[in-house]
Amino acid sequence: MDTADRGERIVVLAHGQFPERAKTAVGVLKYADSEVVAVVDRDTAGTVAADHRADLPAVPIVESMAAAPDADQLLIGVAPIGGGFDESWRPDVRTAIERECDVVAGLHYVLSEDEEFVALADEHGVELRDVRTPDPDLGVAEGRSAEVDADVLLTVGTDCSVGKMTVALELVAAARDRGVDACFVPTGQTGIMIAGWGNPIDRVVADFAAGAVEEMLREVGDDHDLLVVEGQGSIVHPAYSAVTCGILHGAMPDALVLCHAAGRAAVHGYESVSLPPVAAYVDLYESLAAPVHETEVVAGALNTGGIDAEGEARAAVADYADALGAPAADVVRFGADAIVDAVVGGE
Amino acid sequence: MDTADRGERIVVLAHGQFPERAKTAVGVLKYADSEVVAVVDRDTAGTVAADHRADLPAVPIVESMAAAPDADQLLIGVAPIGGGFDESWRPDVRTAIERECDVVAGLHYVLSEDEEFVALADEHGVELRDVRTPDPDLGVAEGRSAEVDADVLLTVGTDCSVGKMTVALELVAAARDRGVDACFVPTGQTGIMIAGWGNPIDRVVADFAAGAVEEMLREVGDDHDLLVVEGQGSIVHPAYSAVTCGILHGAMPDALVLCHAAGRAAVHGYESVSLPPVAAYVDLYESLAAPVHETEVVAGALNTGGIDAEGEARAAVADYADALGAPAADVVRFGADAIVDAVVGGE
Repeated sequence: MDTADRGERIVVLAHGQFPERAKTAVGVLKYADSEVVAVVDRDTAGTVAADHRADLPAVPIVESMAAAPDADQLLIGVAPIGGGFDESWRPDVRTAIERECDVVAGLHYVLSEDEEFVALADEHGVELRDVRTPDPDLGVAEGRSAEVDADVLLTVGTDCSVGKMTVALELVAAARDRGVDACFVPTGQTGIMIAGWGNPIDRVVADFAAGAVEEMLREVGDDHDLLVVEGQGSIVHPAYSAVTCGILHGAMPDALVLCHAAGRAAVHGYESVSLPPVAAYVDLYESLAAPVHETEVVAGALNTGGIDAEGEARAAVADYADALGAPAADVVRFGADAIVDAVVGGE
Repeated sequence: MDTADRGERIVVLAHGQFPERAKTAVGVLKYADSEVVAVVDRDTAGTVAADHRADLPAVPIVESMAAAPDADQLLIGVAPIGGGFDESWRPDVRTAIERECDVVAGLHYVLSEDEEFVALADEHGVELRDVRTPDPDLGVAEGRSAEVDADVLLTVGTDCSVGKMTVALELVAAARDRGVDACFVPTGQTGIMIAGWGNPIDRVVADFAAGAVEEMLREVGDDHDLLVVEGQGSIVHPAYSAVTCGILHGAMPDALVLCHAAGRAAVHGYESVSLPPVAAYVDLYESLAAPVHETEVVAGALNTGGIDAEGEARAAVADYADALGAPAADVVRFGADAIVDAVVGGE
């Protein structure tokens, strides 16, 4: 497993898609421990990231890698549909390697199999890191994640795309603000790019899904007080529940935060499958986890992005908390305090 | 996906491990649709399979492939610890290829990457088939398994190694005895070797686990009346639950048979993890499946292999049926009738 050097200087490539369709670039700008020194986007060059979204820092946007300041790493912060490599990016990647930057990508297209890049990277002594490719040394879980000397929190969901990664990242940031040594444990491609390390559990052989989570927890667990594991999918998802279940048992979490999107009634992309009531999710996650490691839904995170009126959004959060029987928040809209109180309130 | 030609003549290699440690060889002898014309085992050569186990046919055992009758396929029916290839088998594999037999194996060692075998197979126009290697064209589930024109039954378990494959195979055989067109759907290496086709769900990328099950059901579903899907692991297994969950949601079964081993109190190999009560498994499997496809535990299968006295074994089966609130049987010891009645009784 790669654990990135903290304090690296990063350039993020986001041609043509910044910020709306550059989820990875935005995530890295908001949450990465490393310093982002520039965004490369030919469409918005000359502006700064904060011009486009108030929650982003004033990082300059430049038209090409050639125009970027000194850096240690170029990170591909966009993922075109299909995961291909856009040939218009080739000069930027070439320049990065020639300037002795490592190149990090999460594409289906494997940079470390591109003949030109491999030869150039060899010549300049830099690394081409494809984060979609799982560690080849993974194995089955030993059921030992609970031995780590840290509290383990897992964000679980009622569905895909309800904000489990964002909630985990916001909880880590909020816990750190309170002086808690919290660590984000990524399980998906975007989270891995943001954190600079991690196993993409969705790409791991099914037998090793829990083991790949356990490996991460045991690697970083003793160095922190709180591990916030990024959940994936949903335990009742027609396609992705295997990943969810492997993470639940592999992480052996002490507490769960149940993430949901306000108004979501059916599984995203599987509209014939209705979501069960929130209370049913609480029962399912807790009873499924318990034989391996007792856990509890201690809070809820509601994504109210689809609700314009603030009063309505607050009412939706209150209703969600009632349904859960636990505190809830929209961590992006209203902050993570209510959840952090439930998680680390006593510390 | 490979669907084997029925009616092939098969030679099964089982050097030094027949029958006790040759699970695949025994399974193929008992359950395969193809005809086994010989077992290759230098230790028991000169006897017949029925001499060693009363439930096996009188297939001759020969000392080498060179001594075997005409065949279409050599199947490696033993799996040494670690999954390696025993070099003492090389002459048998070489002879098989020279005799224009396909060679089928489920080893970690990949036959189709062995230079000598590849060259020889090319020369003789035969196939080297490694069943551990998943189909490269798998994708995510579409949630459409329930559309197949067949009843779908899934064997689920309280743990690993409780007999889910054997129960599925026995149920198929018993249903066929009653005139039901039943089909075994394999999900693991041994089941795949026995059936001659299938996806090894434990080796599939976690995101595609459910999809790999769905692909099988949609391929064979409309050709049969009853599909009996081989389950894997357990939904509360510390390492393998991802595979179990992917199969549960990918298969969208109409009915479940809960398999258990009498006396098993903790997860095999994870002795600190106690098995929940049987009724808890029923709740978990049913409530986890329901949002995707409603299902019900209609019967139980108890492996009483660890109980010597027949009266005690019958009592254990009766207790298990009581705990389940459903009919139960030890399908190997007492036959599958009680379960088949519950599954296809009305047909």
